[in-house]
Amino acid sequence: MTRPIWYAWLTEVFRDFHLDPVSPVPLYRQVFDRFSHLIHSGELAHGDRLPATRDLAAQLGLNRGTVAAAYALLESEGLISGHVGRGSFVLGPKPSAGLSWSSLLAAWDGAGPAAPPPPASDVISFESSRPAGEMFPLDEFAETCGEVTRGADRAAVLQLGSPFGFGPLRQWLIEEMRRSGAWRDGDDLIVTSGCQQALDLLVRVLMGTPEGATVALEDPVYPGARNLFARAGVRMAGVPVGPDGLDLAALERVLAQERPRIALVTPNFQNPTGLTLPLPARRDLIAMARNAGCVLVENDVYGDLRYWGEPEPSLKALDDGALTVQIRSFSKVAFPGLRVGWAAGPRPLIARMAEAKLLADLHTDHLSQAVLLRFAESGRLAAHIARVLNVGRERLEAVLDACAKHLPDGASWTRPEGGMNLWVNLPRPLDAAALLPAARRAGVSYLPGHCFAVSRQEPGGFRLSFAGLEPEQIHRGVGLLGAVCAEEFSRERHDETAPAIV
Amino acid sequence: MTRPIWYAWLTEVFRDFHLDPVSPVPLYRQVFDRFSHLIHSGELAHGDRLPATRDLAAQLGLNRGTVAAAYALLESEGLISGHVGRGSFVLGPKPSAGLSWSSLLAAWDGAGPAAPPPPASDVISFESSRPAGEMFPLDEFAETCGEVTRGADRAAVLQLGSPFGFGPLRQWLIEEMRRSGAWRDGDDLIVTSGCQQALDLLVRVLMGTPEGATVALEDPVYPGARNLFARAGVRMAGVPVGPDGLDLAALERVLAQERPRIALVTPNFQNPTGLTLPLPARRDLIAMARNAGCVLVENDVYGDLRYWGEPEPSLKALDDGALTVQIRSFSKVAFPGLRVGWAAGPRPLIARMAEAKLLADLHTDHLSQAVLLRFAESGRLAAHIARVLNVGRERLEAVLDACAKHLPDGASWTRPEGGMNLWVNLPRPLDAAALLPAARRAGVSYLPGHCFAVSRQEPGGFRLSFAGLEPEQIHRGVGLLGAVCAEEFSRERHDETAPAIV
Repeated sequence: MTRPIWYAWLTEVFRDFHLDPVSPVPLYRQVFDRFSHLIHSGELAHGDRLPATRDLAAQLGLNRGTVAAAYALLESEGLISGHVGRGSFVLGPKPSAGLSWSSLLAAWDGAGPAAPPPPASDVISFESSRPAGEMFPLDEFAETCGEVTRGADRAAVLQLGSPFGFGPLRQWLIEEMRRSGAWRDGDDLIVTSGCQQALDLLVRVLMGTPEGATVALEDPVYPGARNLFARAGVRMAGVPVGPDGLDLAALERVLAQERPRIALVTPNFQNPTGLTLPLPARRDLIAMARNAGCVLVENDVYGDLRYWGEPEPSLKALDDGALTVQIRSFSKVAFPGLRVGWAAGPRPLIARMAEAKLLADLHTDHLSQAVLLRFAESGRLAAHIARVLNVGRERLEAVLDACAKHLPDGASWTRPEGGMNLWVNLPRPLDAAALLPAARRAGVSYLPGHCFAVSRQEPGGFRLSFAGLEPEQIHRGVGLLGAVCAEEFSRERHDETAPAIV
Repeated sequence: MTRPIWYAWLTEVFRDFHLDPVSPVPLYRQVFDRFSHLIHSGELAHGDRLPATRDLAAQLGLNRGTVAAAYALLESEGLISGHVGRGSFVLGPKPSAGLSWSSLLAAWDGAGPAAPPPPASDVISFESSRPAGEMFPLDEFAETCGEVTRGADRAAVLQLGSPFGFGPLRQWLIEEMRRSGAWRDGDDLIVTSGCQQALDLLVRVLMGTPEGATVALEDPVYPGARNLFARAGVRMAGVPVGPDGLDLAALERVLAQERPRIALVTPNFQNPTGLTLPLPARRDLIAMARNAGCVLVENDVYGDLRYWGEPEPSLKALDDGALTVQIRSFSKVAFPGLRVGWAAGPRPLIARMAEAKLLADLHTDHLSQAVLLRFAESGRLAAHIARVLNVGRERLEAVLDACAKHLPDGASWTRPEGGMNLWVNLPRPLDAAALLPAARRAGVSYLPGHCFAVSRQEPGGFRLSFAGLEPEQIHRGVGLLGAVCAEEFSRERHDETAPAIV
């Protein structure tokens, strides 16, 4: 308001501003950082008005929600003040009396990724790899809780426990691994707060070398893995996942050149591609890792969700050299709101993970460990998984059908036999990140390829997480997506055929 | 066995070996490291027999259980093999075909602390600062779970949630803080897996600067805090806790000289001393931290456990400069097996903690969040705390009585008005760490001062955690301790009066 030309000036400032769609820093945070800099440098002063979210979104080619998320963060930091119907105004940098949170948090902000803003609630969202909530057997779950809270272990459940996990659950998990042939003499097992924490503990105990360490990751890989390693300052080497799963020739080069300390592999229904590693490749992978002295981390959260075809033995079961640690969880097959996963592998490693766990959060929640154990022991888990498999099969068939019917010529997609995700590649010049705002406006959402990219970009790539949606929603959502692609194609063609007049 | 003189040689090797009783590396791990080195360097070879645990314990002045724990770890690493009745034999270093876990884990092992081996089960243990298990209202807890698992939110409880925590619990906690005057405009709140995780997240977002950072800690302080910062490579500056609580003159020096980024303070019933910071000192502390630009982390897990006297306002309520983050938990007032704590403070900080939480374990377990909310909302938590206060008062009175009755002349101890812990200082030349093996043999255990030491050692200091023991056990345990002290005193006097013959 103090500068009559502020709007033109601000437009100018943002004309020079290039968003980086493949940065691990999310777009809304990039917009936030720009404004924060302008305010702290004094280029924007107290009382200046910010552009309307709609206008700035249009100028930057962003979803309006992304700009709104940036403004909300600016407001939460006390840098601007928003008034419904009047707009947002600069308050100026923080008064010097208080702490400078921007500078205190600078090291954290510099490094990293954050969660993207969620889509509107009426959008059909293929964004989240999670189970179908309407399948939860609520009454059986209530009965299970009743049995635990009236059972023999109920006092032990409430008391402080071991960083290795709740004893009875640990024993049950070890017995299950024995039955499946994945347990070795010299193994140990720790219960974690989901698989994500198992990865975090592995980073703490294996990657904290002064000279730094490298991880080999599937490329594309799910954001929870990539962002964790990125934040920890671990170097990441991507190994492409092609139509036949992990590219072993590329892995061999990475092992030789980058000497990674860990290779993280999801051999069943990999996230995001949904692909499964065939048996011969599993054996080759283990041999390569052994020769390279590399720890194999087998993420097997999806293995139980096979809708058709025959299962392959796990890396953990195939490895007779004690270099594999397997991480699993109840989240995908049962209830992700209960944060219970586990890691099993060589005892020296698990012992250090337990030490790290004690410092991180003492131990995993007892109540959920006891309830999930009872849910499994009572046979309810097996019955639940059988129902989930029936429903998952329908949904996977639906998404494959819908892709064939609605996606444009030249699009390709993976053909998983289980899990929760498949990977689509749109034909050039379509760009999945650039299309997302239009898709969201049309009523459908997904996570574009850059969220999963390690070393290589696939502009046309994106993930469809289908397990949480009903077949009818899947058809409708992919249909909307097809229409957005078609519209973009016709616009592109129109642009190409327009005469050059300037 | 291949060396006839092995036993003499081994005795020699261990004669030069000095245990460090104040190292964050526990004693059993120090013994383990020594043997591991001897085996990897070839000084001990395949087939060599290790000394009996009893003999080595006597030679090193250790509890036999400590040596047994070291041997168990050696065995779990595949370095030795134990046979009941025949002894333990060296297997040699790991065959080169597998991974070298010792070298892969070297960075982690170098830095750090681990949990000490627990005492035998028939020992009266003052080691753990945790609630009385026999007080748990098991039937009320079962009813609460039943209400949650049949309630309106039951499907949401099972589904994936927010890194900030389960919405209804978050709202309830915020309302509670508003009522207590501790909530400010611009605050936010995140639910964590206990207080320990809140600290861990603070380390991640605030201490990860390339040039390193410093924390100011009360000295003595509880091991969970000290070991977390030590493991993260954070420099620690101790601020002595004297009879009147935190020594503010010492704090002022530390703030000026060490420029800590965080000061972690437990103003109510500090762990391990049980001491409480008076109101004027609270105000001075806030003013000092503000002048120094230092974030105040207020650990208030014990505040609700006041058995007599008047409560003081929290640092969070007194701070009008937005530099305090308060961490609390249900663990001490309710059930530590349910891992639910929270952190409340300035929004920019809490937002980054949520990003770190997402990478660490996605979010805190939903079931326990929902159950604890229901337990609180239904009034059961308040009724439980009232019962806990009655019992805690008796136990605190018992431990104070028992100290007056049984501890030797010259011993001093703190006089807490609440919480779970008090701090004893034995007169010279008694050493609490050196006495521990004898105390355990006599049937009583405690944590000696070096477990809590930051910058200064109090050889006579140790913690008595009384809340989990009944008054009769408390009297018996402190009585045993008094007898061990008396025996040691008479031995010392005997030694002093013995004629010097060499």
